[in-house]
Amino acid sequence: MKLIRFGQSGAEKPGIETSEGQRLDCSQFGEDWNENFFGNGGIERLQRWLDDNHQNLPKVDDSVRLGSPICRPSKIICVGLNYSLHAKETGADIPEQPILFMKASSSLSGPFDPVIIPRKSVKTDWEVELAVIIGKKAAYVSEEDAMNYVAGYALHNDVSERDFQLNHGGQWVKGKSCDTFAPIGPYLVTQDEIKDPHQLRLWLSVNGEMLQDSFTSDLIFDIPKLVSYISQYMSLLPGDVISTGTPAGVGLGLNPPRYLKPGDVMELGIEGLGIAKQTAKAYV
Amino acid sequence: MKLIRFGQSGAEKPGIETSEGQRLDCSQFGEDWNENFFGNGGIERLQRWLDDNHQNLPKVDDSVRLGSPICRPSKIICVGLNYSLHAKETGADIPEQPILFMKASSSLSGPFDPVIIPRKSVKTDWEVELAVIIGKKAAYVSEEDAMNYVAGYALHNDVSERDFQLNHGGQWVKGKSCDTFAPIGPYLVTQDEIKDPHQLRLWLSVNGEMLQDSFTSDLIFDIPKLVSYISQYMSLLPGDVISTGTPAGVGLGLNPPRYLKPGDVMELGIEGLGIAKQTAKAYV
Repeated sequence: MKLIRFGQSGAEKPGIETSEGQRLDCSQFGEDWNENFFGNGGIERLQRWLDDNHQNLPKVDDSVRLGSPICRPSKIICVGLNYSLHAKETGADIPEQPILFMKASSSLSGPFDPVIIPRKSVKTDWEVELAVIIGKKAAYVSEEDAMNYVAGYALHNDVSERDFQLNHGGQWVKGKSCDTFAPIGPYLVTQDEIKDPHQLRLWLSVNGEMLQDSFTSDLIFDIPKLVSYISQYMSLLPGDVISTGTPAGVGLGLNPPRYLKPGDVMELGIEGLGIAKQTAKAYV
Repeated sequence: MKLIRFGQSGAEKPGIETSEGQRLDCSQFGEDWNENFFGNGGIERLQRWLDDNHQNLPKVDDSVRLGSPICRPSKIICVGLNYSLHAKETGADIPEQPILFMKASSSLSGPFDPVIIPRKSVKTDWEVELAVIIGKKAAYVSEEDAMNYVAGYALHNDVSERDFQLNHGGQWVKGKSCDTFAPIGPYLVTQDEIKDPHQLRLWLSVNGEMLQDSFTSDLIFDIPKLVSYISQYMSLLPGDVISTGTPAGVGLGLNPPRYLKPGDVMELGIEGLGIAKQTAKAYV
């Protein structure tokens, strides 16, 4: 199943996209795709409800804006340097254990929304990533059991301001949390539809030039490891997002480095998880 | 006004504590103390409603559990090394600009709840802090205007696992986000009741021994500076928490260092913001 949320920013409605690519309005189901939904067997309940109701649902026109396919989560936790070639391009060592950082959930936006280059930004950069959405509360789970806590997957651009991240003192969060820095979607694909999340091509182009092009098979720490590992430090809640890290080809790693200017167009995709497109805009 | 939330964890009800120390149930007001409340003039609306209704409100017995006085916020953003003597005791330089990090909001707990020492923890530590609660959405606000975005203040213990924070690779978030690591309260005191938030004594004792005892006048970066500074990097949303940093006297800074064992009792307080008490417990 593919979950979407559509409509005006801040007033999105829940829906699905069918296997034929038709978007359907699921407002009548009476729930948003949020912590309560995921944590109370929402995916199974929605599937049963759709079996009875899908023929009667209002269609959503393709011109309607898509928002993040999940409601604002309790947290967006990201994994740093989780592809070897990306670690190398940033000049960092291969990490011995997952590097974690957080993005403010206020940075969440839709998959086709503009990415706003913040005031005083000089190094706004791209990072295509596979995001994992948690399906039930996870605390101290084992790697063997970890996939039982996964609701599904989505495409994420972990937009990053490198100067804020690395040169403004202290921790990375300053360069990761700007508004619009977490476009997610076009949809959340439930776990059952992805045979192997570690065999997916992921890519990102800027103005048509392919700059990131890799496979999730190159992840240093795989999804069961990450879910289990993070759950040793904090409870993961239903709807929480784990963004699993980006492959090589970010602007910081190019020679010379290259960053987003207003008007630049990022297109990105992951096999089975759809395609997104974001245009960089100056803050006004 | 002093806002409280009381009752079972996860099912707290909203209330107030009167200037006479009487707790009153405000469930009839029909709102929780959350983003929507703060962002829609909730404090003023509640005050007007109380003028008409306070005599008829059910009393809350002192034996009832207090939860966090605010609903789970979109983010808890903390400031590192914001007191000179604390920076010195950790061996760090005085920061040139505020160091920011995040605590997972899933770490939020009540002011008298136990603090759970996580599995494999060897260095669970205390940090009394003044927390600022945001009253309206703040993006790119000036220092001069910043106090207009503050709803009020609360007492916070920024509990920290130093080994997770400093020795597990990467960023501080691993040592800051464990469940129960953010006890807030007993209450949120609205801004109008605190004449000068930069002239408050704050202290913390462990098993009766005073270990932190300082004044918010020693803050390196004051509250207007912090609100303005953070809002250059991300939007602060109503109900968001900024924890302003801890003074000297944490376990890491003692000689020899000292950390929490099961049964240890932390008592902490800030002038005008009440007193809290948390007992350390082993994870079972």
